[in-house]
Amino acid sequence: MRWWGWGDPHRASTLAPHALSLLRAALDITAPPKPPVALGHVHLEPPATSAGDLAELRNLIGEAKVRDDHRQRVIHAAGKSYPDLVRLRSGTPEGAPDAIVYPASREQLHMLLSVCAQRSLAIVPFGGGTSVVGGLAPLRGEHRAVIALDLREMASVLELDRESLIVTVQAGLRARELEGLLGAEGLTLGHFPQSFEYVSLGGCAATRSAGQASTGYGRFEELVLGLGMSAPAGRIELPAMPASAAGPSLRELIVGSEGTLGVIDELALRVRRAPSERLYEGFFFESFEQGASAFREMVQHGDAPDVARLSDEQETGISLALAGTGGLKTRVGRAYLTARGYAQGCLAILGFEGEAEEAHGRRARARQLMREQGGLAVGRSPATAWLHSRFTAPYLRDELITHGVIVETLETATRWSNLVSLRGKVVAAIAESLRACGTPGVVGCHVSHTYETGASLYFTFLAPAREGEEVAQWQAVKAAASRAIVDGGGTITHHHAVGRDHAPWMEREIGRAGVQALRAVKAQLDPTGIMNPGKLLP
Amino acid sequence: MRWWGWGDPHRASTLAPHALSLLRAALDITAPPKPPVALGHVHLEPPATSAGDLAELRNLIGEAKVRDDHRQRVIHAAGKSYPDLVRLRSGTPEGAPDAIVYPASREQLHMLLSVCAQRSLAIVPFGGGTSVVGGLAPLRGEHRAVIALDLREMASVLELDRESLIVTVQAGLRARELEGLLGAEGLTLGHFPQSFEYVSLGGCAATRSAGQASTGYGRFEELVLGLGMSAPAGRIELPAMPASAAGPSLRELIVGSEGTLGVIDELALRVRRAPSERLYEGFFFESFEQGASAFREMVQHGDAPDVARLSDEQETGISLALAGTGGLKTRVGRAYLTARGYAQGCLAILGFEGEAEEAHGRRARARQLMREQGGLAVGRSPATAWLHSRFTAPYLRDELITHGVIVETLETATRWSNLVSLRGKVVAAIAESLRACGTPGVVGCHVSHTYETGASLYFTFLAPAREGEEVAQWQAVKAAASRAIVDGGGTITHHHAVGRDHAPWMEREIGRAGVQALRAVKAQLDPTGIMNPGKLLP
Repeated sequence: MRWWGWGDPHRASTLAPHALSLLRAALDITAPPKPPVALGHVHLEPPATSAGDLAELRNLIGEAKVRDDHRQRVIHAAGKSYPDLVRLRSGTPEGAPDAIVYPASREQLHMLLSVCAQRSLAIVPFGGGTSVVGGLAPLRGEHRAVIALDLREMASVLELDRESLIVTVQAGLRARELEGLLGAEGLTLGHFPQSFEYVSLGGCAATRSAGQASTGYGRFEELVLGLGMSAPAGRIELPAMPASAAGPSLRELIVGSEGTLGVIDELALRVRRAPSERLYEGFFFESFEQGASAFREMVQHGDAPDVARLSDEQETGISLALAGTGGLKTRVGRAYLTARGYAQGCLAILGFEGEAEEAHGRRARARQLMREQGGLAVGRSPATAWLHSRFTAPYLRDELITHGVIVETLETATRWSNLVSLRGKVVAAIAESLRACGTPGVVGCHVSHTYETGASLYFTFLAPAREGEEVAQWQAVKAAASRAIVDGGGTITHHHAVGRDHAPWMEREIGRAGVQALRAVKAQLDPTGIMNPGKLLP
Repeated sequence: MRWWGWGDPHRASTLAPHALSLLRAALDITAPPKPPVALGHVHLEPPATSAGDLAELRNLIGEAKVRDDHRQRVIHAAGKSYPDLVRLRSGTPEGAPDAIVYPASREQLHMLLSVCAQRSLAIVPFGGGTSVVGGLAPLRGEHRAVIALDLREMASVLELDRESLIVTVQAGLRARELEGLLGAEGLTLGHFPQSFEYVSLGGCAATRSAGQASTGYGRFEELVLGLGMSAPAGRIELPAMPASAAGPSLRELIVGSEGTLGVIDELALRVRRAPSERLYEGFFFESFEQGASAFREMVQHGDAPDVARLSDEQETGISLALAGTGGLKTRVGRAYLTARGYAQGCLAILGFEGEAEEAHGRRARARQLMREQGGLAVGRSPATAWLHSRFTAPYLRDELITHGVIVETLETATRWSNLVSLRGKVVAAIAESLRACGTPGVVGCHVSHTYETGASLYFTFLAPAREGEEVAQWQAVKAAASRAIVDGGGTITHHHAVGRDHAPWMEREIGRAGVQALRAVKAQLDPTGIMNPGKLLP
């Protein structure tokens, strides 16, 4: 993974020249591209750990498993949010962990927690490193130093129970690796967040991840049947049960705890038989309202697809202009839409996965309903294009940052009766905030997860960055959008998690007594407060 | 509700004379029937509340809303477990609440919690009064007295959001009443526990209820989108969101908290459009193993029915002998089964609900799979008989108790790969324990809830009671069964909840650190420990 951005360092550009020209013109950008500084020019303070700290840590888990070299510190210095990347690229991260440890077993993990608690060393659990909400910020809180605890050495499959469709894994295993292993067995986890190629399963659990196919396969918390979490005060081990009425769900208390209670080290996950059929296709709607209404009818009739995405007019326009969307980018495709009255319309993509008869039946009923609701079937090509590029947006973002564009995403969910209204309010808040910064931009939105009672809303905005003031610009927009979300009746996050960036909004989400209840659990499991300070709780 | 048993006091006997003779013979029962004592003969200690307590409570919520008469105290003295009923019938309950309060608003509820905390009065929240695990036992813990807090006056529908399919209710509303109101709107909650005719929605949430159709409609925790809970230290209000990644799920911490953290007073519940089609039918399998395997294939192929029940050989035999099971009770039906080799077989009932095309398609695929797995379709009559009597078992139990039969149920869930093994172990433990008491009996089991990863197991046992020693007998069997469940890899409860009876097993279920985490939450929300002492936590 690139230390200053996303993914494979050897991957070629994904930004087509025509798209770049178009964007530069639309956003009035004239500055030349600005690449990241060289790794050696990233400024870090010297580690705050003492020689005694390092000696004890190395004594516990081995010389090579405790690192404090510049490169590893930079790699673990931040996640992948826009401000994270802007700071890294300019060589001025907020800070970095003073050391990185790589435990290889539960026993080592247990000893590390114990020693860190004794020595007042804060711990930031580190999986795939893909947080976009400041979940990996190297904050030490009240402690002497901060250690990144990288779980990559704990990445084994412990058990595959084919009869029960349960796989038990160590939490450092990557989603992509598990999916490969399961695929060879004719199985799938079905969890495909945009970060799929890098994200760890422990990270998915810690952050309540949702993937692109979660409408069908379920959010990550629905895939977690059992888990183990090592906390400074002890280990919680919850065996995999299909269901239970044995009191409050500790599983649901640990899922989403974002490393603030302990380190999730094992997971028992529900898997599925790999689908024999995958049917993806595109539809056009005249408006977001019309498409949202069709999606609602579809999911409330029990015929939800596994993937259901609906872009609003702005996002559809941007997508068609920038990347082309399969056949629709051709002049023929556009002429067809114009002739049918969908020229300013909204693109939807539906995907049905499963066994042949069931998937075809569900698709047929959904197509019928889409037509009744005003949807125009536009064939497979937009869906194929989306499938092809479903994990590439973070690469594109890096290139846009190089070209002086602020590009960020944020998300929420709300009930159906509030969906159109909330979308309007958040789009307006982002646009207004960008104008107030003197950098008007473009704002698009899509629905990516549907439920019987509501749906997610995912916003993307692009605007010209003001050099040296990018983080302040971002902060202004983020605050305006967050306020619009909570005032407008949405959750502060549907699947990006809380981290540091959303922590100030948690009291609005769960109330004062709710925050106090979580603090009480934390005080019990992490009495010295070393676990991921400054995250989750305000 | 009868104070000494179940349901409508005017309901006629459900135990057919032939069935009674058969049972008396099978269990070697010779004693004459023994009805409950008269209400006036139920012995209660005088209320421990002071005149000052009562005066202050009455001042808060009104004279008529604070009761301490003998009748109300008896009605609120226990739930509906076998030991509860045996004690009540003999006029010697363990105790009774010293007073009963009926708050009519959140404001009154808040004031009551505050005054009870000040005055050291324990509170037992009381909904439908149907707990079978000692969840309503009037335990005062360290406190001066114990008050039952009956929520029947807080039973309004607050909002119906038809577009989002969300209904918001006060928690004292009964499931049956809500289902009636929703039915008039073409909607359904789809939650039908055996206690459906009496249970309150707040009780369903507090105990993680599962209903007979929960395989299709979802367990109660899946129906709860938002909630309000009044706790002594404050109120937690979680708005209804279709999904969220905003940290640990407080919703899932409060659902299942069994009144030990506070009083759930409001619920936002997911509802569905009422099904236009209801297709129920019976199947026979040669063995429990064969039926379980067929059920597993069905749910793992994504074609789960909404209701799926599989009785083992013993339960099938008892059912056919006692109540008859539709057409199968006729000699023709039995001859048919015998001819096909299913004479000692297992009865399964499948129910498909939904819109016509979807439900018929799902049923057709499931029937095909049942046949492939060795299932024999036996038509609608056994299913019709089951639907007709689905809420009557508690009436039957009362009659059996009158006739000197110990009759009790208990339940668990486990993964598919452990299901047959666990069933065998628990049946053996119950049977052995009954033999050791000198009262051999019969034990049956059924699967009533299926999941992709496993299923529930529900055990029923009948044995001759030893007069005056019924509770000791029950305790011996319950302990043996519980030990077999936890040693055998099952959860201590799939849908009956923890209450007092399962509390000693909670540490086995969630570990020491897990129990401590829950205690920390309780200490935060209920600092003086007045909320339902002696329940849930060991």
